[in-house]
Amino acid sequence: MIVVGGDAAGMTAASQARRLRDRDDLEIVAFERGHFTSYSACGIPYWIGGVVDDRDELIARHPATFRESYQIDVRLRHEVTRIDLDRREVVARDLDGDREIRERYDTLMYAVGATPRLPAWADSQVAGIFGVQTLDDGAALRAWLESEPAPRRAVVVGGGYIGVEMAEALIQRGLTVTLVERAEQPMTTVDPDMAVRVADAMRALGIEIRTGVEVTGLRERDGRVTAVVTDDGPVPADVVVLGLGVRPNTALAEAAGLPLGSSGGVRVDRRMRVLGVPDVWAAGDCVESLHRVSGLPVHIPLGTHANKQGRVAGINIGGGYAAFPGVIGTAVTKVCELEVGRTGLREQDAHAAGFEFVSVHVESTNRAGYYPGARPMTVKLIAERPSGRLLGAQIVGWSEAAKRIDALAVALWNEMTVDDMTGLDLGYAPPYAPVWDPVLIAARKAVDALAR
Amino acid sequence: MIVVGGDAAGMTAASQARRLRDRDDLEIVAFERGHFTSYSACGIPYWIGGVVDDRDELIARHPATFRESYQIDVRLRHEVTRIDLDRREVVARDLDGDREIRERYDTLMYAVGATPRLPAWADSQVAGIFGVQTLDDGAALRAWLESEPAPRRAVVVGGGYIGVEMAEALIQRGLTVTLVERAEQPMTTVDPDMAVRVADAMRALGIEIRTGVEVTGLRERDGRVTAVVTDDGPVPADVVVLGLGVRPNTALAEAAGLPLGSSGGVRVDRRMRVLGVPDVWAAGDCVESLHRVSGLPVHIPLGTHANKQGRVAGINIGGGYAAFPGVIGTAVTKVCELEVGRTGLREQDAHAAGFEFVSVHVESTNRAGYYPGARPMTVKLIAERPSGRLLGAQIVGWSEAAKRIDALAVALWNEMTVDDMTGLDLGYAPPYAPVWDPVLIAARKAVDALAR
Repeated sequence: MIVVGGDAAGMTAASQARRLRDRDDLEIVAFERGHFTSYSACGIPYWIGGVVDDRDELIARHPATFRESYQIDVRLRHEVTRIDLDRREVVARDLDGDREIRERYDTLMYAVGATPRLPAWADSQVAGIFGVQTLDDGAALRAWLESEPAPRRAVVVGGGYIGVEMAEALIQRGLTVTLVERAEQPMTTVDPDMAVRVADAMRALGIEIRTGVEVTGLRERDGRVTAVVTDDGPVPADVVVLGLGVRPNTALAEAAGLPLGSSGGVRVDRRMRVLGVPDVWAAGDCVESLHRVSGLPVHIPLGTHANKQGRVAGINIGGGYAAFPGVIGTAVTKVCELEVGRTGLREQDAHAAGFEFVSVHVESTNRAGYYPGARPMTVKLIAERPSGRLLGAQIVGWSEAAKRIDALAVALWNEMTVDDMTGLDLGYAPPYAPVWDPVLIAARKAVDALAR
Repeated sequence: MIVVGGDAAGMTAASQARRLRDRDDLEIVAFERGHFTSYSACGIPYWIGGVVDDRDELIARHPATFRESYQIDVRLRHEVTRIDLDRREVVARDLDGDREIRERYDTLMYAVGATPRLPAWADSQVAGIFGVQTLDDGAALRAWLESEPAPRRAVVVGGGYIGVEMAEALIQRGLTVTLVERAEQPMTTVDPDMAVRVADAMRALGIEIRTGVEVTGLRERDGRVTAVVTDDGPVPADVVVLGLGVRPNTALAEAAGLPLGSSGGVRVDRRMRVLGVPDVWAAGDCVESLHRVSGLPVHIPLGTHANKQGRVAGINIGGGYAAFPGVIGTAVTKVCELEVGRTGLREQDAHAAGFEFVSVHVESTNRAGYYPGARPMTVKLIAERPSGRLLGAQIVGWSEAAKRIDALAVALWNEMTVDDMTGLDLGYAPPYAPVWDPVLIAARKAVDALAR
């Protein structure tokens, strides 16, 4: 078995396969072009912001662990440059030794992740422009922030999760931060009526937000960035962080002839086999997944999916049976104390997928109103008309709010209607909810909206 | 329409019916023997403990609101003493004026709640013994605590929710507190292996816990309690709080000939009609409910059910259609910072209901291990063998733990198997969960246990 890419998906698949097949039965070689294996990419903003002190805390398992406990031949700084399906062979380059290696496989695991989207203007040799997808990316950014002269002005381009989290991280480090977002609100993963609360919270932290603004170029001096140029004038910058999302790494797959889907990711079946290609598996940020609500393929790069998919692939490679059931787009994040949760479809997704729907939102609190520490919480539901089936949900609130999305995610997973949801037996006690849980109030309001 | 009992269930039914039928169409009279309507009984321990300052904060709606905004003729301090089904008449006593009133009904709403279980030894005229079911009970206890000589030593008898919450409330007020519990652990609403963590947290607060001990009597001086007598010796007490659970108030129902179920509560159909009795409805702590997992009738007195049931009854009385789908036993509480959530069946319930099952528990954390503030969290799952259907779940953890039971409650509600649950798309970000959510780890462990 050859694993291409030694992060969450690849190494989870490898170690899962090892649990089922010992080294006499299955030899495993893993090529990773970076310096690390199995780390928490999602933790990088917190390391940059200083919330997490030590980079090593982000590493779930070190190469030595894989070598010793799992007998996996991990080869760091080895970049696979070619996959030959006919010869069942990969060609890898040792980035330090600068030599080429060829290895035969009987089973291939493709798990090369994703790369930050690079706009045309960033395609240059100007120093001070960073994505934050890999731990190597994060280390480079941190080194830049700690270099002399110390950067003081940061511009974050794009207001998705990474952009929002990085803006907070950089302001926590004491930089002035401007977030530039093309859309009308940052946090485009929720509907604009919910995102406006996130924008307000970011402004309250001191982050300047410029929406409806597009970056068109850079200015530099002595090879270092000095500003981003936008269609609304220049914004000074000693450091620029890209938060424009990521695209699946598929160059290698495409060259080898692996099938790509409409979302851009590698196409796989439920068992994480690459469609129509014998003995080749793929998982993680480089594949596309089925969205269980829209029925459409989507590319949702998230560690939780990468781990689940890697486990499924590993069980199947090991001779067991497992299937990945698809995703529903659940995600949580926070801006300072403001918590955001979402699952399923936004209004624009529901439109695009052809649903008719109603949407409601309710203002409630995370605790009984009389209980100390009660804070506002907004729940939004989107329900199909006329069936009442839940299509999407979003929560924004000031504490103990984000993870409540899980109850809605499980309701959505099970295709519950909002009418059924009004009867749900959810946990009630004054420190945890009003006697009518905000989720139940929202479900009742959606039922009323459907009746109109 | 006559409403017997003016708390959550009765007044919710009345106001819901009013929304659908105006005063020309439906006259509503509500008799309440206490001084209050629609208050949060669940908030009483927090008022006693001083977490909530003002009693009035616990009152959701005052009688004046019902009278003015809902045109409901609320009569406080009126105790209904007899229901005559043949004559469609109730007899009520004005407790202050000491006179009797007769009123005819076309629709009767029976919502008289529950009363703390009174052991034989407490059936006396000794002062200083309190239940905490009604706001009047709470007011009496608070007055006693503030009287002279100020009580210093409290004994709480019984370690259910109310007992545990009251023990915490009393120690917060500066009393010494001993909790006496017949079982091997307090917090018998979860399995003993989970309850032991609750007991440890209570001891850490300074609460003395005496388990396996039964109270057999009282000692008194000048009509005031001085100790409880147990089968393990006397325990000094200036105040005794009963936490032995409650029993549905059914004396009136029984005398009238309303049907009672095996759990002791009034039997109702899905629309909250008293079974086989025309135009009589019942809801709240005085009725029994269907447990959706065991299929058995249960008596679970909780404000959240009372409100839902009252709403269902009110919609039906108003001419609409609504059904109460039953309960699954979800509940949350806390002891200081330790949070407890539970849903479905405990091991002993699963045995009693005839299930074969496996149970697993996992130790994890509420956040990514490297994220500041990560605290231990234990998740226990009980799954039917061999089907894998989730039967019950319990969570104990140190922060942001209890409400996570809701995701498990929704899974259980939808009769998910633990195998299906391993694929659930739950919210992941380092401040909210490890990359493998504790719920998913537990589901995987249950799958493994089923395979053995």
